[in-house]
Amino acid sequence: MEDYKIGIDLGGTNIAVGIVTKDGSILSKKSVKTGSQRPFEEIVKDMADCTLSLLEENSISLENVSHIGIGAPGSIDTANGVIVYANNFKYGEHVPMANLLRKYIDKPVYIGNDANVAALGEVISGAAKGLKNAIMITLGTGVGGGIVIDGKIYEGQHSAGAELGHIMLVKDGEQCTCGRKGCWEAYASATALIRQTAKAMKDNPDSIMNQMTTPDNVSGRTAFEAARKGDKAGQEVVDRYIEYIAEGLIDMINIFRPEILIIGGGICNEGDYLLKPMRSYINKYVYAGSRLPEQKIAVAKLGNDAGIIGAAFLA
Amino acid sequence: MEDYKIGIDLGGTNIAVGIVTKDGSILSKKSVKTGSQRPFEEIVKDMADCTLSLLEENSISLENVSHIGIGAPGSIDTANGVIVYANNFKYGEHVPMANLLRKYIDKPVYIGNDANVAALGEVISGAAKGLKNAIMITLGTGVGGGIVIDGKIYEGQHSAGAELGHIMLVKDGEQCTCGRKGCWEAYASATALIRQTAKAMKDNPDSIMNQMTTPDNVSGRTAFEAARKGDKAGQEVVDRYIEYIAEGLIDMINIFRPEILIIGGGICNEGDYLLKPMRSYINKYVYAGSRLPEQKIAVAKLGNDAGIIGAAFLA
Repeated sequence: MEDYKIGIDLGGTNIAVGIVTKDGSILSKKSVKTGSQRPFEEIVKDMADCTLSLLEENSISLENVSHIGIGAPGSIDTANGVIVYANNFKYGEHVPMANLLRKYIDKPVYIGNDANVAALGEVISGAAKGLKNAIMITLGTGVGGGIVIDGKIYEGQHSAGAELGHIMLVKDGEQCTCGRKGCWEAYASATALIRQTAKAMKDNPDSIMNQMTTPDNVSGRTAFEAARKGDKAGQEVVDRYIEYIAEGLIDMINIFRPEILIIGGGICNEGDYLLKPMRSYINKYVYAGSRLPEQKIAVAKLGNDAGIIGAAFLA
Repeated sequence: MEDYKIGIDLGGTNIAVGIVTKDGSILSKKSVKTGSQRPFEEIVKDMADCTLSLLEENSISLENVSHIGIGAPGSIDTANGVIVYANNFKYGEHVPMANLLRKYIDKPVYIGNDANVAALGEVISGAAKGLKNAIMITLGTGVGGGIVIDGKIYEGQHSAGAELGHIMLVKDGEQCTCGRKGCWEAYASATALIRQTAKAMKDNPDSIMNQMTTPDNVSGRTAFEAARKGDKAGQEVVDRYIEYIAEGLIDMINIFRPEILIIGGGICNEGDYLLKPMRSYINKYVYAGSRLPEQKIAVAKLGNDAGIIGAAFLA
């Protein structure tokens, strides 16, 4: 009986492997360091070893495993199981991931983009459990996006869609890493928040943020902490940053009106301090406003487990 | 044998009715004035009369008709066949369209938003024939959008998605009719082009546009005509307007990477004068640029027939 699926979240820092049950829960998991500067053959061998030892520790034989799913960063050719390009791996170009892994474990291997896979994980077992149409936005170093329609990942031609951070927010605005100017990611990522905070510190020498840290050591929490202490400059950064997030989310709602809009990333730890004004801004400016029921917006529930579970459910 | 479907395009000016074959061609069509300021009972009676006389003229009995599909402007409750709100009809609120029409013709009635329906029409018989995933953008008074995924209209919860003109282009920019500031529609619609042209005329008294017309009588063609004659101010309007269109289309590609992106509306008559620089701008700034095959972009083929055919194929 093939009662289990293997889900692997291949990150730049860690490889997390999980044994996933048919109902979408993780029976057991284990992780090893990625070593992203190594040749991919070595990385894949560690993925396989980690998987096999996890199975052994749980006394589950390979016969009980239906397949392996992998969520990986970058551009993925899902049809052929290839990492086309993942910039945070030294050898992350044209990696025939599925074929490499099958040398060690003779099971079907499926691979998807990590942001798409995390969205699917939240649909299977997390914030969107029981729903079919969900958009997930992860506010991290960049702004990642995943689209689930009819219970399946929507990734577009060449698996190249769902680049939801790369929609325009300010024409001719901040330079984005993608080459365009003014992308949502260049305003709403944690990286952008840090840049906005550092600028506010320089522009406002009296801000308590300058007592808390130096512009070179700002974190995504600096402005929020200062705002909570009543700092005007910090509050302005927070207010503006929340608008930036909200504008992109309004775009997502106007485009998709999903059953649920999920947001993830460390910034969500700010809780209602972030979410309340964000919801209020969205309700004010979303298309058709109060003439339609309020859009359901939730914080991601599964954290890194979303990647494992979503990967396992690629098939 | 139910060999035929009826498709009705309910516009603000005309009601166009077509007999549509199973393979998606229009056997015969007919139209009557809408009279959008009349009570909806009268409008619906004319829709029914037009349909019945069209069938009679073609010697087709109602027994040979499987159903009636309607594309209508505004917010549509497709599940219940109701026009929730269509601002260009005097009595366009909470119109139980399907039930009203069934009083006259006892057939199943389906209703969809006109932009969505036109996109479906292009997939069935037009620029996207044979494809499954298409995005259609219509540049008219506003910027309309339709999403077809897996051969079906994607409309989101409460049929309220696919408001593709209402994504942000310039944060805190031009006021949009939807209440938000800086929507794509406020820059890329024909209405916006006219506003941009009129402003350029006032700012450039020497422009030949001021000999061609007055700022109050500008059309969507004025700047293009002037540019073709070598007018600098006209060329600047055109160049900037093409950028506005392209930026939103890049968003669509980054989000959907559809098999085909279709653009419609009168502006497409400018042909390569519009399309060539637009494609070149898109190729330069789309995510992953030349690392991926060029996005297929085509001009809508069916004109108003897309609405009839798409409506007929709502079921």
